[in-house]
Amino acid sequence: MDPLERVLSIQSHVVFGYVGGKAAVFPLQCLGYDVDVVNTVHFSNHSGYGRFGGTKTTADELNAIFESLEHNELLMPTRLLTGYIPGAEALSAVEKLACKLKHSKPSLIYLLDPVMGDTGRLYVAPDVIPVYQKMLPLATIITPNWFEVELLTKTELKDMKSLHRALEILHKEYHVPHVVISSIPLKPWLASALPSTILPTKCSSSSHLLCISSSLSTSSYPNTTAPLLSTVHAQCVPLIPGYFSGVGDLFSALLLAHFHPDQTPETINTTPLSVAASLALTKTHALLLMTHGQSQALPAEERLPTDDELDQDNPLRKTRRMRGRELALVKGQNLIRGSAIAHPREMMLWDGFWDSPQTL
Amino acid sequence: MDPLERVLSIQSHVVFGYVGGKAAVFPLQCLGYDVDVVNTVHFSNHSGYGRFGGTKTTADELNAIFESLEHNELLMPTRLLTGYIPGAEALSAVEKLACKLKHSKPSLIYLLDPVMGDTGRLYVAPDVIPVYQKMLPLATIITPNWFEVELLTKTELKDMKSLHRALEILHKEYHVPHVVISSIPLKPWLASALPSTILPTKCSSSSHLLCISSSLSTSSYPNTTAPLLSTVHAQCVPLIPGYFSGVGDLFSALLLAHFHPDQTPETINTTPLSVAASLALTKTHALLLMTHGQSQALPAEERLPTDDELDQDNPLRKTRRMRGRELALVKGQNLIRGSAIAHPREMMLWDGFWDSPQTL
Repeated sequence: MDPLERVLSIQSHVVFGYVGGKAAVFPLQCLGYDVDVVNTVHFSNHSGYGRFGGTKTTADELNAIFESLEHNELLMPTRLLTGYIPGAEALSAVEKLACKLKHSKPSLIYLLDPVMGDTGRLYVAPDVIPVYQKMLPLATIITPNWFEVELLTKTELKDMKSLHRALEILHKEYHVPHVVISSIPLKPWLASALPSTILPTKCSSSSHLLCISSSLSTSSYPNTTAPLLSTVHAQCVPLIPGYFSGVGDLFSALLLAHFHPDQTPETINTTPLSVAASLALTKTHALLLMTHGQSQALPAEERLPTDDELDQDNPLRKTRRMRGRELALVKGQNLIRGSAIAHPREMMLWDGFWDSPQTL
Repeated sequence: MDPLERVLSIQSHVVFGYVGGKAAVFPLQCLGYDVDVVNTVHFSNHSGYGRFGGTKTTADELNAIFESLEHNELLMPTRLLTGYIPGAEALSAVEKLACKLKHSKPSLIYLLDPVMGDTGRLYVAPDVIPVYQKMLPLATIITPNWFEVELLTKTELKDMKSLHRALEILHKEYHVPHVVISSIPLKPWLASALPSTILPTKCSSSSHLLCISSSLSTSSYPNTTAPLLSTVHAQCVPLIPGYFSGVGDLFSALLLAHFHPDQTPETINTTPLSVAASLALTKTHALLLMTHGQSQALPAEERLPTDDELDQDNPLRKTRRMRGRELALVKGQNLIRGSAIAHPREMMLWDGFWDSPQTL
């Protein structure tokens, strides 16, 4: 009915600020997608503020919505995006829907962001992990963070060998065609394995994050030395101090928006995934810089440094810090549309990624 | 904290399509407003489809969200927009919030759209009417339709005298500074009272709708003949065949976005309200034309004419018709930004509006 592409987005909703759907829907709309928006929670603000009010959408409520959409012939997305879904029961409802959509329309592009936790801390119930593992084969692209890769693959990432193993599990056991791991701390073992083309010129591993994309090899993607499992790209991004929420949600939405698997890559050194990741990384980083600049311009009491003890005495300390670091999504909308980008951050081919690690 | 203006929007949410918040939030964001989004319902689609699934947000849930926002110092809108709120209890929760916001920040611009029904049919519980009447003095602008004016003022609109009476009640009894009534059928008594500058050149009353705006007279607005109660503007808009949903919600959002009471009007014949209404009317009509054109280009079975009997036999007939008439909000986003408007529809000063009606 509509010449435009249509995304079904299933993730959290917060009244104030930009995480989950609030970080994803507006960018997708700006980039020309009609978005069907299912809210898995309806909270006042994100949980990083320490206090929040509102409700989670139950599995029954989600099912009622999905059934009505189906009965009314309104389940017609060309793309599916799922993010924060807090419980196993609700996640299972989404799994059933994803299964149905994928089977009725095999060309569906499904970006699954397995939102479970970060830097060692789980912020969903542990029983969602097996449900996510069950869902992986439905996905076109997944965007786990470092910690989520470890949870999904049961592999501690501590050297190139374990990184190889984790990607093998995701590509071969779970049949995920495209994996993007953004924001990996550039630990010494990782920095030493990186080709010089990717390493930052002023290499200080603590001041950079690495983004890795890996596309399962198919006849349509170039392989410099066949038969490799996947084509891997990477790029380093300077770390911006402070904690910002919703960055992963924004990145995933931009990645999905810019992923065009049927477009022939412009050069032999790119894949549709690396092209999309380059744009998503560039725009996300530009928006973070704007957000950071804006937060630095706030009055002193609105940008107090992180201090757990002081926060405990005065919860508003934390609240004000969080509020000052909400993504400048509306102010930066021209960055999202791509009309004001100064520094492109191109994902570079990681030649030799699958060679035996030198550390072994 | 943010140099931008911030709107708190409280209205319905549908997963598929564009009514309520889905018709209002994206345009406000495109026009540079950060929007805090409270959903009063979470439905699969609008009720015009005949069938829908989902839940209403209870008054308790709304209160929990409002309280958390307040505790976290996140209740900081410069503007408030309220639309569809289905029950008196939930509406009372919003009324308390609006009261609190208005008292703590008297400069708050509150656009109240008293969504109750249309063309004689009430689609909320009747006990919301007195709650809306209680809320009117809090509003900066209200955007009732014809039927809602009658409900709020208990005045049947049948001639210029009753129209005068209704506006007097809204401006004087309820102290509403700005009233916009869009989409009034151009009945003979109304057409005959219109100045020739406003009447469409090819005047066929059944093919046009009238939009009226009325700003309470203050020292800062020009009055051609003082002391009049208000300055009235109007414009006729050609009727587009078929029923479109969410048009009023879009119009109200655009009206709020373009309302700048502190800007000096460019000419003596405009008010801040008439300037905003001109832009809202122009953009809404342009978007409706695009939507209409798009729906006309659909395959025959997607644009079946309205027929209640056939609809009853096959509910999907109605569903497909509704689906084909969802606002082309994403496709038409350049119209919203104002960069692609061909025909401006300027609200014209209705000189002599408050003169005694000729029909009496």
